[in-house]
Amino acid sequence: MVSSSASPQSSPLRIGLIGFGTVGSSVARILAESAPAGLALTMIANRNVARKRADWVSPSVVWTERVEDLLLPESPVDILVELVGGFDPAGEWVRRALSVGKSVVTANKKLIAYQGPELESLARQYGCHLLFGAAVAGGIPVIPGIEHGLSGDRITRVEGILNGTCNFILSAMESGSEYATVLADAQQRGYAEADPTEDVGGFDARAKLAILMRLAMRVHVAPEEIDARPITAVSAVDFAYAAELDATIRQIARAEDTQEGLAAVVSPMLIPRRSPLAWSTGTENMVVTTGAHGGEVVFSGHGAGGHPTAVAVVSDLVNLAHGLGRAPVAFRAAHVNVEPEVPHYIRFLVRDRPGIVAAIAGSLAAENINLNAILQKPGCCADRLPFVVTVEPCRASALRRALAAIAQMDFVLAPPLDMQILHK
Amino acid sequence: MVSSSASPQSSPLRIGLIGFGTVGSSVARILAESAPAGLALTMIANRNVARKRADWVSPSVVWTERVEDLLLPESPVDILVELVGGFDPAGEWVRRALSVGKSVVTANKKLIAYQGPELESLARQYGCHLLFGAAVAGGIPVIPGIEHGLSGDRITRVEGILNGTCNFILSAMESGSEYATVLADAQQRGYAEADPTEDVGGFDARAKLAILMRLAMRVHVAPEEIDARPITAVSAVDFAYAAELDATIRQIARAEDTQEGLAAVVSPMLIPRRSPLAWSTGTENMVVTTGAHGGEVVFSGHGAGGHPTAVAVVSDLVNLAHGLGRAPVAFRAAHVNVEPEVPHYIRFLVRDRPGIVAAIAGSLAAENINLNAILQKPGCCADRLPFVVTVEPCRASALRRALAAIAQMDFVLAPPLDMQILHK
Repeated sequence: MVSSSASPQSSPLRIGLIGFGTVGSSVARILAESAPAGLALTMIANRNVARKRADWVSPSVVWTERVEDLLLPESPVDILVELVGGFDPAGEWVRRALSVGKSVVTANKKLIAYQGPELESLARQYGCHLLFGAAVAGGIPVIPGIEHGLSGDRITRVEGILNGTCNFILSAMESGSEYATVLADAQQRGYAEADPTEDVGGFDARAKLAILMRLAMRVHVAPEEIDARPITAVSAVDFAYAAELDATIRQIARAEDTQEGLAAVVSPMLIPRRSPLAWSTGTENMVVTTGAHGGEVVFSGHGAGGHPTAVAVVSDLVNLAHGLGRAPVAFRAAHVNVEPEVPHYIRFLVRDRPGIVAAIAGSLAAENINLNAILQKPGCCADRLPFVVTVEPCRASALRRALAAIAQMDFVLAPPLDMQILHK
Repeated sequence: MVSSSASPQSSPLRIGLIGFGTVGSSVARILAESAPAGLALTMIANRNVARKRADWVSPSVVWTERVEDLLLPESPVDILVELVGGFDPAGEWVRRALSVGKSVVTANKKLIAYQGPELESLARQYGCHLLFGAAVAGGIPVIPGIEHGLSGDRITRVEGILNGTCNFILSAMESGSEYATVLADAQQRGYAEADPTEDVGGFDARAKLAILMRLAMRVHVAPEEIDARPITAVSAVDFAYAAELDATIRQIARAEDTQEGLAAVVSPMLIPRRSPLAWSTGTENMVVTTGAHGGEVVFSGHGAGGHPTAVAVVSDLVNLAHGLGRAPVAFRAAHVNVEPEVPHYIRFLVRDRPGIVAAIAGSLAAENINLNAILQKPGCCADRLPFVVTVEPCRASALRRALAAIAQMDFVLAPPLDMQILHK
């Protein structure tokens, strides 16, 4: 064995793991199998620990139900791995660990999106590290790639598929199934939660987008400022119309730093088939960054699941074992203050009668929105007719005003669905 | 401005740049424009320096034609950026810099592929760093992604498009142009050298593959052990036949760690259109890693060119400014010792007569190779007929023996072209 390195420090860093679910058990499994130099798993905390205890974990590991046992200054833990998620009590555990000088590795996107800057200050103050490579896009090294490989660029745009649940649902709907059917299937396979709001509502993706904006574009925004639009209104018929436009539909998280200001949104969008973003299927994730100097870089792979996420966690641990923390990033507090002018797809569901197109076109014109194309698939019944209008680039707020006016009209059977058409 | 970091060390690291060509001037430009904290460009060495001198470079920078001025222990250089390439004299400069404790950032894939382990030892011995994020796939953070984000995985396969010149030529040939025409165009655009052997012969890609094998698969092989097959024999007609097989043709660098041993090759291959590797066009690069735990990860973007490569160089410099070196990797010396059984595409050019298929099938059968399909596009003249045979998985050496026998037959007008069909 030829080694390219001096051996890491002589006494290994002791790891305390909170959460022995899918990701946590996979982290323990990889540590047991590959035994990376300089790291030793010492404690595991979980509820009902008696039922969780696994015989392939080294007998020297202490199992406990009391997370407090891992957080004491004298406990045999140098790095806390937090895999429980959410603000409370996970946030409190992370703060307590950092405050006694224990480094933290976490996959907690919500905590990092909302409280990352505060927690990073705490880590600096107590001379320890906070790593969260697993918080965005699981097994795809987007965060290390941006922090270690793109810091020499000025990144002006980040867009991606950041939620595997939505990507599974939307790519399954391509074959003609309806949302409710596919959601039930996703829930059965364990790809969607019993309450899927966090995923399908866009809230999970916007937390991840906020993290990427901080690291790549060096702006910190409150995630609530990012408009999140649900995928729940997308229907099988929208995929049929999208195909006519040589496009498909994906939940896209997109942020752009323009001369006018900062734009950011999470929404289902029409994606031209030639775009890399149309390549992702199933639970895959993808991130495309655009740099002023290096142009577009695409990262894709398995964004979620126990094993890929565990790879990101263990990679962070290996970095710490070699004394490599994060490249610190200077960022500025910012607000989402720009609505880009983009083309839109609007699908109406109407009771057919003469004059509908004229009425719709009139309401759009009142907001200075130009009609581009009208699509109507043959064979639909006139009393429940879905048809589609595409419009030239306009602001979403102007379009919403026009659609609110149209929604009052007698022929409209359901609120129109509008989606941005992604263009480059 | 909120900063997430303690400021980097108080006196900036002084950068000495060797090579003020496309990449070097772009590095200087980015340093001048973005002024990353903790870094200061102090010296630039180039031949004919009077003609190179640029007015946008700070007047405090010392320009010289004598590289020696940057290498003296007392010269105001903490990090040498080597952008000249090749073994000599670049290798000697890098060794001298490391031996006086100056860290080195380089894009020199040849030097790193062949002498990387020795140079890394030197860096360790003298307490400095050797970073080469720009050596593979330029602006795409493949090296930092593997080193910082996938070290928790066990990567068993690396495959990719690592040479932008070949990818430009082959993706341009898709539209029906012949190799020589496209090469001339590439040379005019500056995408190919006057002597393109290094690129089209596969030698550039195999050096890069050797580097990725060391970092990702933790095996060090001499690049010469990697079979490199040129793209020069690929013809427009091969793209027409590939299209019939729902595939295209790309130069692929591929290494796999199997239970039987280590396989590695650089060659033009037939790529199914559904494979991510078929997405890359023009001078783009792409790398796909396969991990035992995390599965496939795809990286793609602009692999060459001054600006993207400069982003990788500056990112390495920013890492050094923050005290972040490379995560050291333990690797083992290894040999390429396995020939995988893979399906092949074979294109013949023959003078038509009865019995040709029987003769070819007989020679293949003598090596236990099973014919799969025979393709012959209509409309070709019988006295110069290209036609294609695909065969079931077999070893390249067995196929070569069969093709050597066939090449002796009276109907054969040119050596047959065989290419691996990439399958998953």
